[in-house]
Amino acid sequence: MSNRLYAEFLGTAWLVLGGCGSAVLAAGFPQLGIGFLGVALAFGLTVLTMVYAVGGVSGGHFNPAVTVGLAIAGRHPRGEVVQYVVAQVLGGIAGAAILYVIATGKAGAEIGGFATNGYGDRSPGKYGLVSALVIEVVMTFGFVTVILGATDKRVTPGAAGLAIGLALTLIHLVTIPVTNTSVNPARSTAPALFVGGAALSQLWLFWVAPLLGGALAGGAYGLLRSKD
Amino acid sequence: MSNRLYAEFLGTAWLVLGGCGSAVLAAGFPQLGIGFLGVALAFGLTVLTMVYAVGGVSGGHFNPAVTVGLAIAGRHPRGEVVQYVVAQVLGGIAGAAILYVIATGKAGAEIGGFATNGYGDRSPGKYGLVSALVIEVVMTFGFVTVILGATDKRVTPGAAGLAIGLALTLIHLVTIPVTNTSVNPARSTAPALFVGGAALSQLWLFWVAPLLGGALAGGAYGLLRSKD
Amino acid sequence: MSNRLYAEFLGTAWLVLGGCGSAVLAAGFPQLGIGFLGVALAFGLTVLTMVYAVGGVSGGHFNPAVTVGLAIAGRHPRGEVVQYVVAQVLGGIAGAAILYVIATGKAGAEIGGFATNGYGDRSPGKYGLVSALVIEVVMTFGFVTVILGATDKRVTPGAAGLAIGLALTLIHLVTIPVTNTSVNPARSTAPALFVGGAALSQLWLFWVAPLLGGALAGGAYGLLRSKD
Amino acid sequence: MSNRLYAEFLGTAWLVLGGCGSAVLAAGFPQLGIGFLGVALAFGLTVLTMVYAVGGVSGGHFNPAVTVGLAIAGRHPRGEVVQYVVAQVLGGIAGAAILYVIATGKAGAEIGGFATNGYGDRSPGKYGLVSALVIEVVMTFGFVTVILGATDKRVTPGAAGLAIGLALTLIHLVTIPVTNTSVNPARSTAPALFVGGAALSQLWLFWVAPLLGGALAGGAYGLLRSKD
Repeated sequence: MSNRLYAEFLGTAWLVLGGCGSAVLAAGFPQLGIGFLGVALAFGLTVLTMVYAVGGVSGGHFNPAVTVGLAIAGRHPRGEVVQYVVAQVLGGIAGAAILYVIATGKAGAEIGGFATNGYGDRSPGKYGLVSALVIEVVMTFGFVTVILGATDKRVTPGAAGLAIGLALTLIHLVTIPVTNTSVNPARSTAPALFVGGAALSQLWLFWVAPLLGGALAGGAYGLLRSKD
Repeated sequence: MSNRLYAEFLGTAWLVLGGCGSAVLAAGFPQLGIGFLGVALAFGLTVLTMVYAVGGVSGGHFNPAVTVGLAIAGRHPRGEVVQYVVAQVLGGIAGAAILYVIATGKAGAEIGGFATNGYGDRSPGKYGLVSALVIEVVMTFGFVTVILGATDKRVTPGAAGLAIGLALTLIHLVTIPVTNTSVNPARSTAPALFVGGAALSQLWLFWVAPLLGGALAGGAYGLLRSKD
Repeated sequence: MSNRLYAEFLGTAWLVLGGCGSAVLAAGFPQLGIGFLGVALAFGLTVLTMVYAVGGVSGGHFNPAVTVGLAIAGRHPRGEVVQYVVAQVLGGIAGAAILYVIATGKAGAEIGGFATNGYGDRSPGKYGLVSALVIEVVMTFGFVTVILGATDKRVTPGAAGLAIGLALTLIHLVTIPVTNTSVNPARSTAPALFVGGAALSQLWLFWVAPLLGGALAGGAYGLLRSKD
Repeated sequence: MSNRLYAEFLGTAWLVLGGCGSAVLAAGFPQLGIGFLGVALAFGLTVLTMVYAVGGVSGGHFNPAVTVGLAIAGRHPRGEVVQYVVAQVLGGIAGAAILYVIATGKAGAEIGGFATNGYGDRSPGKYGLVSALVIEVVMTFGFVTVILGATDKRVTPGAAGLAIGLALTLIHLVTIPVTNTSVNPARSTAPALFVGGAALSQLWLFWVAPLLGGALAGGAYGLLRSKD
C-alpha cells in the first residue's frame, strides 16, 4: 500500500510543479513566453508522463475527483479513497512548495496569483460563479469519462496515458480563461495555501464541482457499456 | 443500440464544447491566447480522446460525413446512418448550449461569431465560395481516407485514435482562415443555431461539401487496397 | 503496383497541401496565426497521418530522399525507385495545384513565396548556400535514420508513424528560418513550379542535398546494427 | 559495443543540433518565431525520435544523468558508464559544431548565448543559484523516474519513447526561464565550449545538479516497486 500512496504523492507533486510551474515561470515571459497553450500542454504532459511511469503502481490518478469517480464506477476500492486523497493533497503541497522556492529565488520576485483557481474577480477572464461551476462539473465529467473508457479492459492498454494526458491538455485549452482550470481539488488546494485570502475562500468550488463531475461520470459510465 | 447512440451524442457534444469552446473562450485572450494553433489542437484532441474513450462502443465517428463515408466503404451498416446523424447533431447542440451558458456568464459578454463556419464575408480570411467548397471537399476526403486507413483491420489498432485526432488538428491548421474549418456538418450546425442569420443561410455548404468529400473517400478507398 | 503508386501520390499531395497550405494560408494570419510552430506541426502531421493510413500499402515514403535512402539500405526494391519518385512528384504538384486554387480564391490574393524553399536572398533568415546545403544534408540524414530505425523489424511497429511524423516536425522547428525546410525534393518542386523564376533556379539544391543526406543515412545505417 | 557508443553519439548530436538549434535559429524569429514552446517541443522530439530509432541499440540515454541514474538503479552495467558519457559528450560537441557552421553562415551573424545554460545574470529570467540548483536536481529526478517507470519490464514497451520525449518537453516548458534547461550535462557542455567565458565557469552546476538528481531517482526508484 505505501508504494501506491508514494506513487500518488509523487505524481501529484509532479502535476503541480510542472503544470502550475509552467504558468508561474514561463507563460508570460516577454516575447518568448509559452502562453495558455504551453500551460495546457504542460499540465497534460505531467499526467501523460506519470501515468506511463507509475500508472502500473497506483493506477495513476493524481486527482481526488478521479479517485472518487473510479470508486463510484467500481474500478477502485472504496476503502482506499481517503488515503489516496490525502496522498494527493500532500503531494500537491510538496510540488507547490518546491515551486515557491524556485519562483522566489530572484531579485524582486513576486508570485502573483501563483496559478490559483478562481471565479468572478479571480477568474482570468472575469467569468462568474455559474460559468465556473458549470465548466468545472462538465469538464471533470468528460475527463473521468475518458479515463474510464481509455482504461477499460476492452481497450488497447498502451494508449491510456496518451488519451488521459491529452484530455487534460484539451480541458486547459478551453477553460483557463474561465477558472484557470482545476478539475482537480488537489491541484487547486496546493497553490491556494501559499496565496491565502480570497484564493482560499473560493477553494470550496474547486472541491465541490470536480468531485461532483467525477462522481456523475462514475455513475453514468455504465450507460456506455449496457447493451440492448 | 441506445448505448452506441449515447456514445455518438457524448462524443459530438465533447467535440463542439471543446473545439468551439477553445475558439470562443481562449483563442483571442489578450497576450496569452492560444490562437488558431491552440484551437486546431483542441479540435483534434476532442476526437483523439473520445475515440479512445468510446470508439469501442460506437466506432467513434462524431461526424455525419464520417458515418456516410464509412457506410459507402462498407464499414458501417447503412441502416444505422440516420440514427447516427441525428445523435451527432443533437450532441453538437448540447455541447453548444453548454458553451453558450458558460460564455455568457460574465459582465458584457458577447458571443461574436460563436465559432460558426462561413465563406465570403463570413470567412476569417475573406475567402470566397469556391475556395470554401474546394477546401471542405478535399479536406474531408483526406480525413475520411485517414480514418478508413488507420482503422483497417490490417493496421495496428492502438494508433487509430492518435492518427484520426491529429488529422483533424492538421486540417484545422490549414483551413481555419478559409472557412473556420468544418469537415463536419454536426459541428457546423450547432453554433449556427445559436447565431442565426447569415450563419444559418451559409450552413448548406457545410453539409454539402463534407458529405461529398466523405462519400468520395468512401468510394475511392478500395483503390488503395486493390492488388494488380 | 498501381495501388502503391496511388498511395504515394495521395500521401505526397496531402503533404504539400497540408504543410505548404498551413504556411501559405495560416502562418501569418493577423494576431491568431500559427507561426513556424504551427507549420512545423502541420508538416509532421501530414506524414504521421498518412503513414498510419497508407503506410501498409506503399511503405509511406512521400519523399524521393526517403525512397532512395531505403533502397540503399536494402529496405526497398531498387527497381521501383523511379516509379515511386515520379508518383511523389506528381502528387506534390497535385497538392500545390489545389492549394493554388484555394489561396487565390479571395479578393486581392497574392501567393507570395508560396512556401518555396530557398537560400541567400530567398532564405527566410537570409542564410547562405553553405548553411542551406549543410542543414539539408544533415537533417535528411537524421530523418532517414529515424525512419530506418523506427521501421526496423526489431522495433514495436505501432510507433513508427508517430516517430517519423514528429521527426519531420522537429526538423521544421529548427530549419524553417534557414531554407524554409525541404528534406524532400518532391515537396520543393511542386510550389517552385507555380512560382517560377529564382525559386526554380535554386531548386537543384533541394534535390541534391536531401538525396545526398538520404543516401548517406541508408549507407551508414548498418553501423548501428553491427555487433562486435 | 562500438555500435552502441555510435548510437549514443548520434542521438546526443541530434539532441544538441535539434534542441539548441531550434533555440538559436528559430525561437526569436520576428513575428513567426517558435518561442520557448517550440524549443520545448524540439528538445522533446529529439529524444522521442531517437529513442524509437536507436533505443533498441544502446538504450537511448543521450544524457550522462540518465546513464548514471540507470546504473544506480541496476538497469545499466556500471562498467559501461564512462564510455557512454564520453560518447554523449563527443556527440553533443559534434551537434554544436554543425549548428555553429549553420548559424554563422549569414551576413552579420551573431551566435549570442548559443543556447548555453546559466544562472544569475546568465539565467533568462535572472533566477539565482539556489533556484537553478533546486530546479535542475528536481527536474532530473522526475525525468529519470519517468524513464525508469516507462521502461520497466511490467509496462507496455511501445510508449516509452513517447513518455520520455514528452517528459523532456514538459521540463523545458517549466524551466527555460530559470536555467535555459539542462537536466543533461552533455547538452550543457557542448554549446558552452563554443561560447567560453562565463558559460564555462557556470558549467559545473549543470554537471553536479543533473547527476545528483539522476542518482537520487535511481536510488529511490525501488520504493515505487516495493510491496508491503
